[in-house]
Amino acid sequence: MHETPLTEDFLGRFKAAIDLQDEKYIHSVVDDLFVQDISAILDELDIPQAKYVAQLLDSKVTADIVSNLDPDVRKPFLAAFAPPEIASFVDYMDSDDAADLLNELPVRAREEVFAQLDAEQAQYVKPLLHYEPGSAGGLMATELVKANLNWTVRQCIDEIRHQAENVDKIYSVYVVDDKNVLQGRISLKKIIIARDEQLVADLFVEDIVAVETYRDGDEVAAIMQKYDLEAIPVVNVKGELQGRITIDDMVDLIKEQAEKDLQALAGISETVGEDDSVWRLSRARLPWLLIGMLGGILGARFIGLFEGDLLQVPAMAFFIPLITATGGNVGIQSSTIIVQSLAEKDAFASSAWQRLFRVLLVAILNGLVISLVVFGFNMLLFNNLTLSVVVSIALFSVVLIASVMGTVTPLALNRLGINPALASGPFITTANDLMGLLVYFLVARLVFYWFPA
Amino acid sequence: MHETPLTEDFLGRFKAAIDLQDEKYIHSVVDDLFVQDISAILDELDIPQAKYVAQLLDSKVTADIVSNLDPDVRKPFLAAFAPPEIASFVDYMDSDDAADLLNELPVRAREEVFAQLDAEQAQYVKPLLHYEPGSAGGLMATELVKANLNWTVRQCIDEIRHQAENVDKIYSVYVVDDKNVLQGRISLKKIIIARDEQLVADLFVEDIVAVETYRDGDEVAAIMQKYDLEAIPVVNVKGELQGRITIDDMVDLIKEQAEKDLQALAGISETVGEDDSVWRLSRARLPWLLIGMLGGILGARFIGLFEGDLLQVPAMAFFIPLITATGGNVGIQSSTIIVQSLAEKDAFASSAWQRLFRVLLVAILNGLVISLVVFGFNMLLFNNLTLSVVVSIALFSVVLIASVMGTVTPLALNRLGINPALASGPFITTANDLMGLLVYFLVARLVFYWFPA
Repeated sequence: MHETPLTEDFLGRFKAAIDLQDEKYIHSVVDDLFVQDISAILDELDIPQAKYVAQLLDSKVTADIVSNLDPDVRKPFLAAFAPPEIASFVDYMDSDDAADLLNELPVRAREEVFAQLDAEQAQYVKPLLHYEPGSAGGLMATELVKANLNWTVRQCIDEIRHQAENVDKIYSVYVVDDKNVLQGRISLKKIIIARDEQLVADLFVEDIVAVETYRDGDEVAAIMQKYDLEAIPVVNVKGELQGRITIDDMVDLIKEQAEKDLQALAGISETVGEDDSVWRLSRARLPWLLIGMLGGILGARFIGLFEGDLLQVPAMAFFIPLITATGGNVGIQSSTIIVQSLAEKDAFASSAWQRLFRVLLVAILNGLVISLVVFGFNMLLFNNLTLSVVVSIALFSVVLIASVMGTVTPLALNRLGINPALASGPFITTANDLMGLLVYFLVARLVFYWFPA
Repeated sequence: MHETPLTEDFLGRFKAAIDLQDEKYIHSVVDDLFVQDISAILDELDIPQAKYVAQLLDSKVTADIVSNLDPDVRKPFLAAFAPPEIASFVDYMDSDDAADLLNELPVRAREEVFAQLDAEQAQYVKPLLHYEPGSAGGLMATELVKANLNWTVRQCIDEIRHQAENVDKIYSVYVVDDKNVLQGRISLKKIIIARDEQLVADLFVEDIVAVETYRDGDEVAAIMQKYDLEAIPVVNVKGELQGRITIDDMVDLIKEQAEKDLQALAGISETVGEDDSVWRLSRARLPWLLIGMLGGILGARFIGLFEGDLLQVPAMAFFIPLITATGGNVGIQSSTIIVQSLAEKDAFASSAWQRLFRVLLVAILNGLVISLVVFGFNMLLFNNLTLSVVVSIALFSVVLIASVMGTVTPLALNRLGINPALASGPFITTANDLMGLLVYFLVARLVFYWFPA
C-alpha cells in the first residue's frame, strides 16, 4: 500500500529530529511504518540514536524491530541496554527469535536476561537453547496450537482463542495423542467450516510431513519447497511434537544460502555485503587471492622448467593465457553443474560412471569445436602449422581434463562427506591453470620432438 | 512422516508393473504418496508409461501431478493427450497453474483446451492469460476469499464455506469495498475468535502490503521476504483486487533465480541440469568458452606485440598465469559484491563515488599484501630483483584496475538498464586477462628501460 520512505533526505530529517528529541515527529513517522521498515531505519542510525527511538516505542513493537535488525547492528545495539531492558522486549518475541537473540549475547548477559524473562516466555524459550543453530530444532519456534485427537472442534476453537496472543500466525492446528505424539493436522479452513460438536479424530489429515529436530536446515527448506508448505511440525525421535518452522524463516535461509554459494564461486570466503567495513571486505577476499597467487607462483616454476622450449619457440608464450583461461572456464562450468545437481538431492541420481560418461561426451564435443576454431584463427594470424597443432591438441586435452577434474573433485569431496561446493570457484581455476600449463608444455615437447618447428 | 521410495530398484519394479498393467500394485504404491513424489516418478518414465499411470488416477490427483511435473517432461507428456482429456484435469488446477499450462501449449491446442474447460474454471483462468509470465499478474491465482467491508463475521464464514473447494489454502480473507477496491485483510485466526455478529469493518487490518499486477516477480519475492508474508494480494492500478500470490510460488522463483545467478557466474548461458541432453549441455557451455577463447587469441596477439621484450627476458613468460589469474579473481570478486548489492535494492544505497572509494581502499590493501608476498617469494625462488619489482608493480596495478573494472562495469550496465549480472563471470575474467597482460608488459617495458635486467 505505501512505499518505504527510505531516502537520504528522509534519513537526514529523521536524525535531526532525534537530536532535537522531537518525539512528535518521530512518532508521526514511525507509527505509520511496518516494523521491518523501522528496523531498516535503525540499521542506519548510531547506537545512541537507535536506542532513543526504540525507547519511544512500546516493548511489543521494539521486540519485532529488534528481531528484524541487521545482525551486525543488533549486537552493539543490545550492548547499549541493561539485561532487564533487554528482557522487557524479549518477553514479546517469538520463541525462535528470542532464542537466537539470547545465543548472540555474551554468556553472562544471556543468563541475566533469561533470569528476568517472565515465566511463560522462559518456558517457551528454554527448550530451544540447547539445539544446534542450523538444525530444525534450532530453527523452530515452540509456540503452536495443538489439539488432542479426542477433542471436539469447539475445544479446538477454545484452544486457538487461548493461544491467539502467543501464536502470531496460525496455519493449522496440529493433532496429537495423549502422549503428545504427532498424529496429523487440521487446517483453519476446515475448523471454520466444521460444526462445533464434530470430532477432531473425524476431521484431521493423517498424512503430513514432519521433520525431526536433528535435521539440517537446508534439508527442511528443500522439503518445505517440495511439498509447498507454509509451516512444518518438528518432532523428536519419539515422534513427540516439539515445535514448528514457518516458511518465512526458510525463505531467509534459502536466500542466505544462495548468497553464500554465489560468493563461494566468486572466491569470497565470508558472507560480506558491500556496506561492510573495508577491513572485513579485504579479509573476506584475501584467502582466495592468496591461493590463486600461490598457484601463479607454482605456475611460474612450472614454466621455468620448460624455459629451454620457450627459448627455442618464444611464440609458445603467446598462448599461455588461452590455455589457462580455457581450463579455468571449463572446470568452473563442470563443477557448478555437478555441485548444483548434488545440492538438489533429487531422487534417481545418476551413478558416478554415468555422470562421467556424459561429461566426457560434452567435453569432446566442446573441445573439438574450440580447438578447431582456434586452429583456424592461429593459421590465419600466425601461420605456424606446428605451433597451431600444439595449441589445438593442448586445448582439446585441457578441455577434457578440466571437465573430468571439475566433475570428479566435487563428487569425491561429497563422497568423503566434505561440502562439494568447496571444489568450485578459484580452487578449481587454480588447479586447472597448473594442469593446463603442464599439458601445454608436455604436448609441445612431444610435438616439437617429432616435428621441429 | 514417510520417506519417498525413489530408488533405482523401486523404479524398476514400478516400470515392470506398468508393462504388466498391474493396476493393483500401482495403486498400492501411488495411493500412499504425496503428489509431488508421484510427479517425481512420472518424470522418470517414458511418456506412454506416464500416461498409463495418470489415467489410473482421478482427474483431481492428475491435476496436481501435472502441475508438479518437470517442465521438460510436461510438454511431451501433454502432447500424448487429446484436448478434452487435458481439459478434464486442467479443470481441477489452481488458476495460476492452469494459465501456465495453457501458455505452454501450442496455440491451437491452447484454444481447444480452453474451449472445453468448465465455465467456472474458464472464468478463473481467463483473466490470467494476458499477463506477462514473470509479472505479479502472471504469477497470481484468481481464487481467493474476499469479504465486503460491511459484512458480518457470519457472512465471511459463509463465504469461506462457499469458496472452500476452490481455494486450496486460505490464509486471510481480503476485505474490499463496494467497488472491489482492496481495503485490508482479516486473518482466519481472528475470524475463528470473533463472534458471528461482529462487523468486518471493526475487525480488519487496514495497513497491508499489496502489489500491482505489473510488478516484477523478483520484486514481489523481495517484498514477501521482507515482510514475512505467506500470501500477498495483487491489485490493478485502480487498487481493485485481482488475485493473490502465495509464498510457495515465490520460493520456487527465488530458488530458480539463485540457480540462474550461479550458472551465469560460472559461464553457463542457459539454465541446464546435469540430466539434460549432452547436446543441450554442450550448447549452454559453448558461448562463454568461445568468448574466453577469443580473449585468449587476442591475448596471444598482445603478447606477440611484446615478443622482443620476451626474447630479452624470457623469464617474463613465467609470470603470465599469475598476472591473468589474479586479475580474473579480483574482477569476479568485485563484480559479485556489486551485483549482489544492486540486486538487494535495499534502501540507502551508496552513491557510485562512495562505492568506488571503498573498493579502491580494499584493492590497495589487498594489492599491497599480494604484491609484497609475491615479491618475497620471487626473490627467494628466482633471485632477480628487477623482474621481481616488475611482477609486483604489475600485480598491484592489476588488482587496482580489476577492482575498478569489476565495480564500474556492473554499475554502468545497471545505469543503462541492462542486467548488471551480465558483467560478472567469464566476461569480467576475459577482459581482466587482457588488461592484466597489457599492464604487465607495459610495466616491464618501463622498468627495464630504466633498470635493464
